[in-house]
Amino acid sequence: MISPIENHRSIRKYLDKQIPGDVLNEVLLAATRASNTGNMQLYSMVVTTDADLRQKLWTAHFKQQMVLQAPVHITFCADINRFSHWCRLRNADASYDNLLWFINASMDAALASQNLVVEAEANGLGICYLGTVIYNADQIIEILQLPKGVFPVASLVMGYPAENPDLTDRLPLEALVHYDVYTPYTANKINEIYTEKENLQASQNFVNENAKQNLAQVFTDIRYKRSDNEFFSGKVIEIIRKQGFAI
Amino acid sequence: MISPIENHRSIRKYLDKQIPGDVLNEVLLAATRASNTGNMQLYSMVVTTDADLRQKLWTAHFKQQMVLQAPVHITFCADINRFSHWCRLRNADASYDNLLWFINASMDAALASQNLVVEAEANGLGICYLGTVIYNADQIIEILQLPKGVFPVASLVMGYPAENPDLTDRLPLEALVHYDVYTPYTANKINEIYTEKENLQASQNFVNENAKQNLAQVFTDIRYKRSDNEFFSGKVIEIIRKQGFAI
Repeated sequence: MISPIENHRSIRKYLDKQIPGDVLNEVLLAATRASNTGNMQLYSMVVTTDADLRQKLWTAHFKQQMVLQAPVHITFCADINRFSHWCRLRNADASYDNLLWFINASMDAALASQNLVVEAEANGLGICYLGTVIYNADQIIEILQLPKGVFPVASLVMGYPAENPDLTDRLPLEALVHYDVYTPYTANKINEIYTEKENLQASQNFVNENAKQNLAQVFTDIRYKRSDNEFFSGKVIEIIRKQGFAI
Repeated sequence: MISPIENHRSIRKYLDKQIPGDVLNEVLLAATRASNTGNMQLYSMVVTTDADLRQKLWTAHFKQQMVLQAPVHITFCADINRFSHWCRLRNADASYDNLLWFINASMDAALASQNLVVEAEANGLGICYLGTVIYNADQIIEILQLPKGVFPVASLVMGYPAENPDLTDRLPLEALVHYDVYTPYTANKINEIYTEKENLQASQNFVNENAKQNLAQVFTDIRYKRSDNEFFSGKVIEIIRKQGFAI
């Protein structure tokens, strides 16, 4: 397996060291080489290095420490604004303000981001994705001044690592891959594929620290619980609509 | 830039040559190394090699020739089914059947797919994404027997290339990158960043063949037109709901 993929882990501690302009440029160019819908490139990358703005982003991202530390913050946005603007100037009838194109553009942004990550890590950089971008998309839209037609779907911080964590556990390949068609999971199969994860020392610590019966309950009752899921899901629908995509 | 990223292009012609099992395995493992939401790995990969099934997928993918030719077809699905099943077996209250988690899971699937692509290309394989996966998701769900909680968001064919096409054009980096915050595009800026693309011989051929005034109209009137966009967007919302995600 190529090294940046095999050795990928999220980096949460960064050196106080800037990323040279030519390295940053190459990493951004790598993002643009990814496949995308109809070569319309329906995404934008907002590269934020300004300390005040990064502090605001830190708040929007639930104050995760690495957001303050890493010198570069990149927000990948589904973007039909640029393409639609081009169409308007060419007397062409753009009709991409709907969920179909929200998804297409989001996939474009996601593929670009992962290309960027692989190239960044090949250059000795570390990254950490911030899933929180969806949760507080409204705040991020305001901080980054995203217009209608633009929605932040992925975001990450990037810099030179000041830590060298172990690889994170993954489910066995057989848990994630289906051959030919999707094979329904039996209870036995579920037990089998989650055993290793449940038995990790880290998992058992999570269970004990949170006084739960098992690891699944740590996810459902502590990390990603019903009240939050329902609240943020309602919020994200509203924000997508507000950004001009019909749902 | 690392070679598989720098030299990526979509491959639409394939050799009649199988992918060895160990290579396929390594490429699938590479997918699983990608970052994902809370390490919940909310995606599945359906690897279809059966000729009859690939013929059905070919129909669902608007009969694009490479779907018949390539030996392997992979459908990346947002998948809350496996995780929720695990939760049910552990008396944990899963509440991921909503748009927030549809997006989180879709991003997981997308990042995994792009990792797979880079690793595949590093192994001499070629791929072509099929954006059509979203358009006929209902047919693909039926062919691949995807249960509730599972939605196909990215799909690609893979095999050994029988062609060596040129790199595809991209907008200049300045078109796609914003520094610190999003800078609104002026008409001048739009004209500037689309000039090179509009002046390509291939673009001019598209315009002439379709008897349009300009390239933007080829997109809006021929390739991705209003009636299709509105029809398929309505359809995709219904299918997402039918797969059990509240919108």
